[in-house]
Amino acid sequence: MSKIAVIGGGSWATALVKILSDGGKTKLHWWIRNQDDINHIRQYNSNPRYLPSAKISPEHVIPFSNIKDAIREANCILLAVPAAFVLDAIKDLTPKDFENKFVISAIKGLIPEKHILVTEHIEKNFSVHHKRVAVIGGPCHAEEVAMEKQAYLTIASGSKRFGKELSEAMQNRYIKTTSIRDIYGVEYSAVMKNIVAISCGIAHGLGYGDNFQAVLVSNAMQEVQYFLKAAYHIKRNLLGTAYLGDMLVTSYSQFSRNRTFGNMIGHGYSVKAAQLEMQMVAEGYYAVKSIYEIAKRLDIENDLPITRAVYNILYERISPIVEFRILKDQLN
Amino acid sequence: MSKIAVIGGGSWATALVKILSDGGKTKLHWWIRNQDDINHIRQYNSNPRYLPSAKISPEHVIPFSNIKDAIREANCILLAVPAAFVLDAIKDLTPKDFENKFVISAIKGLIPEKHILVTEHIEKNFSVHHKRVAVIGGPCHAEEVAMEKQAYLTIASGSKRFGKELSEAMQNRYIKTTSIRDIYGVEYSAVMKNIVAISCGIAHGLGYGDNFQAVLVSNAMQEVQYFLKAAYHIKRNLLGTAYLGDMLVTSYSQFSRNRTFGNMIGHGYSVKAAQLEMQMVAEGYYAVKSIYEIAKRLDIENDLPITRAVYNILYERISPIVEFRILKDQLN
Repeated sequence: MSKIAVIGGGSWATALVKILSDGGKTKLHWWIRNQDDINHIRQYNSNPRYLPSAKISPEHVIPFSNIKDAIREANCILLAVPAAFVLDAIKDLTPKDFENKFVISAIKGLIPEKHILVTEHIEKNFSVHHKRVAVIGGPCHAEEVAMEKQAYLTIASGSKRFGKELSEAMQNRYIKTTSIRDIYGVEYSAVMKNIVAISCGIAHGLGYGDNFQAVLVSNAMQEVQYFLKAAYHIKRNLLGTAYLGDMLVTSYSQFSRNRTFGNMIGHGYSVKAAQLEMQMVAEGYYAVKSIYEIAKRLDIENDLPITRAVYNILYERISPIVEFRILKDQLN
Repeated sequence: MSKIAVIGGGSWATALVKILSDGGKTKLHWWIRNQDDINHIRQYNSNPRYLPSAKISPEHVIPFSNIKDAIREANCILLAVPAAFVLDAIKDLTPKDFENKFVISAIKGLIPEKHILVTEHIEKNFSVHHKRVAVIGGPCHAEEVAMEKQAYLTIASGSKRFGKELSEAMQNRYIKTTSIRDIYGVEYSAVMKNIVAISCGIAHGLGYGDNFQAVLVSNAMQEVQYFLKAAYHIKRNLLGTAYLGDMLVTSYSQFSRNRTFGNMIGHGYSVKAAQLEMQMVAEGYYAVKSIYEIAKRLDIENDLPITRAVYNILYERISPIVEFRILKDQLN
């Protein structure tokens, strides 16, 4: 675990690079696609596009433009690209490249079209044993990492020892870590929170108030509970920060892109118009499709009223006013 | 249950009067201390001091200035004064006055000095059977009730039948109700949320960010779980709106008085100065003293780090900076 290859050059990847190098226990091989960015990092010790205030120490971090070079000598691969781009990012890699390596996913999403978790995909398609896999969960705005504000990460890993080592590597003066075993639960819950953030935005856009949002979020946590019981039933406490904490930071943040997207939908924008206006697609837009598909497979799609409402609004073009009138009678 | 005596003339009492009269199933005898307010209500059908926009229908509501007159013909007494004033409000009443009546508490607090729940006090000192008691829980800003925004109340009652009747009486076009059995759990949780709101305010005042608040609130829910296990252990789902929902609306509201109070403390105000500036005492100030005393009785005060931190800051004059430095290492 002394050498970690970090895959991805966005804001969350940059925050993780900063966290790990401030921990001082690891050397990082940082794969970034864009050569100009790499040159900038080499020259100025900072990522020009994301969290430029975060100092990238050359002592701990070597940037790479070729992914195979980046991972060759690493004993651990940390995936930190948006879920929508992960397949493209690792398209040149084979099971051989993953041999004897640990894999950490910091991706909060499902593989698009395939509707499976990122870790499941890696385990199956690259022959990585569940015991060598971990995910990083917990509420953590990248922007606050740049400011070194106190935050907490939860490491969910397949083996106790790997979890402990990774926890220690990620701990530093402003990050505290906890280690648990529930890889899939943390991932599913992180995916579902983006759907909930969209629903909070829609509710706000439609004029529902604070009381309603509090009820929506508690019902959403019950929906996560119901879904996880069907999809991956183990003992867990959903009041933990990796579940509830992550849900809160996303649902209550005014800056959440999922919430902003939902708010526009609630105000009457079409999905296309909202996406054009935002110049991006909110993660929850893909998440709700995947979770709905998985729920159908599990035959529980009618037991997830919030997921279904968001799905119907975004994919079946049902009016948010109508859908929320139905939803409000299903909450309690 | 057809005639309810409402005790209290504040904003929450006014909201409950509006909710019940909009339900149309009950006649209300409304006890208000101030004769001028009663005259105003009789003349203009609105409470001049609180939620004046809420119409008080004379068909459903008769105001009383004498509490004994108000409750005499009622078969149900609804207590809706702040916890700090409840003993004074009912000081002229005897067990005889409560005979054969149901008692509903809409008070989210403990009896000051005595450190016991309002319902426990009523049961013990006025010989009211637990089966004839209920509490009204759930996230519900009075201001949003005045605007008729969709909200949800949880009725916790000692008997299924009473709970059902009260649920039906409180239901109307903008209020949905659920009925459960956990009277004490709902009360304790409602009390503890005010402590948490103070802690969120302190954290904000000290410069902690959104990530930290999300962690604080999830740890607070675990603290409620721990406390309830020791104080009143029954099966309950803390993800329900009466627990989590109520916690969220208070902790995340910028208008919460508890949060505002905490924020001033975090910014360096003394307790006295913050109370003078606010011209009131936030409920959580009393709550933390009571919960801490109960925790000591149960020998679990060291297992409630958030409660203890707020207690130490407010009552032991320990610096919030120091106390939160300790607290942040106890969260996860």
